[in-house]
Amino acid sequence: AIIVYRLPWTWKCSKLLMKFIHAGLNTIAMILAIVSMVAVFDFHNAKNIPNMYSLHSWIGLTAVIFYSLQLFFGFAVFLLPFAPVHLRTALMPIHVYSGLTIFATVIATALMGITEKLIFALENPSYSASPPEATFVNCLGLLLVIFGSLILWMASRPHWKRPPEENTKILRPIGATPEGTEVESRMTNSGNTDKSDLRSNTEADRKPNIKFDDAGQRSTM
Amino acid sequence: AIIVYRLPWTWKCSKLLMKFIHAGLNTIAMILAIVSMVAVFDFHNAKNIPNMYSLHSWIGLTAVIFYSLQLFFGFAVFLLPFAPVHLRTALMPIHVYSGLTIFATVIATALMGITEKLIFALENPSYSASPPEATFVNCLGLLLVIFGSLILWMASRPHWKRPPEENTKILRPIGATPEGTEVESRMTNSGNTDKSDLRSNTEADRKPNIKFDDAGQRSTM
Repeated sequence: AIIVYRLPWTWKCSKLLMKFIHAGLNTIAMILAIVSMVAVFDFHNAKNIPNMYSLHSWIGLTAVIFYSLQLFFGFAVFLLPFAPVHLRTALMPIHVYSGLTIFATVIATALMGITEKLIFALENPSYSASPPEATFVNCLGLLLVIFGSLILWMASRPHWKRPPEENTKILRPIGATPEGTEVESRMTNSGNTDKSDLRSNTEADRKPNIKFDDAGQRSTM
Repeated sequence: AIIVYRLPWTWKCSKLLMKFIHAGLNTIAMILAIVSMVAVFDFHNAKNIPNMYSLHSWIGLTAVIFYSLQLFFGFAVFLLPFAPVHLRTALMPIHVYSGLTIFATVIATALMGITEKLIFALENPSYSASPPEATFVNCLGLLLVIFGSLILWMASRPHWKRPPEENTKILRPIGATPEGTEVESRMTNSGNTDKSDLRSNTEADRKPNIKFDDAGQRSTM
């Protein structure tokens, strides 16, 4: 879901379709998260294990709560056509940051869960004796870290961003102006502009406007 | 060390001084990491606990290895005056990404270590009975996540970047050209440029040059 805007084959889709894919995948992930939480509580209750005592559970529940908030605000602000462009612009960097931070936190929670499970489940031989299961699951944990690193790399490369659309006018939400499209096209290339174009800039061009940063501009459509 | 370039009071320092602070703090952290690794192996050997069996140790050692590589390449490329500007430009986004990913991985490793320690150390009452120690250390773990999130927020805000220096000519390394200074000044504001300046851009301005992205440009001096 995170990298749907970073895949070249999705660049042919309309922005609205990509948003639906992004929101849809995240909704499926949220449903799976709720199912697995119910399963955990049922398992604990059936085995008379206390709930919510471990750091894994605390951070995991925090991540799920923030994830549901992220999904709710993402839906309300970026998918429904009611939010004005300036609100979308202001909230987009927060949405991107929250998404990536929740993703990293979920990876950390999974690693803690794996650690707990290996300690509790491996009895004879124990985890510290490094049985094949322990080595195998440790490798899975390392792969999880590699997976997380790759996703964060893809999500944070400016030149992996979706190029601007030709037909944004058709998909423009309420409150968007034709200038928005121009600004978006320009901002896409702000990170990788040619040197020759940069020399011509004057001091006046540099007026800072912190709300109009790259991430915000890119996703107001 | 990560946010040294993001603190307004350091903006008065020269870039070279800030680099020394950044490198110095990271060197201290590396020394502490080595000391603590020696302590862990000594502790394990003294208590006859096997070394390197847990996922915590695997990911922790991986992080320390990557951290030492990061320190070595950071020193060789960005602190010593021999690397040409195009190499610095090309490596800076990788340096920034690696630093932040290693930081997040170290937080995850600490959380796994806390989980392990709580399970092993709390015997009577056990961790699952939620004694005050468990709640206290869980809170420390949550604070660690909040700390990590704040640092990543500060490090990833484009408008928290250090403003361009007036006197970069004095500090210019071998291979830097006066244009470099101009490019840097311009790139600083590429993420927060005023709308009015954007409308005047033509197609020719948008020639992509993926190597000259924002992070790279900012730190070639």
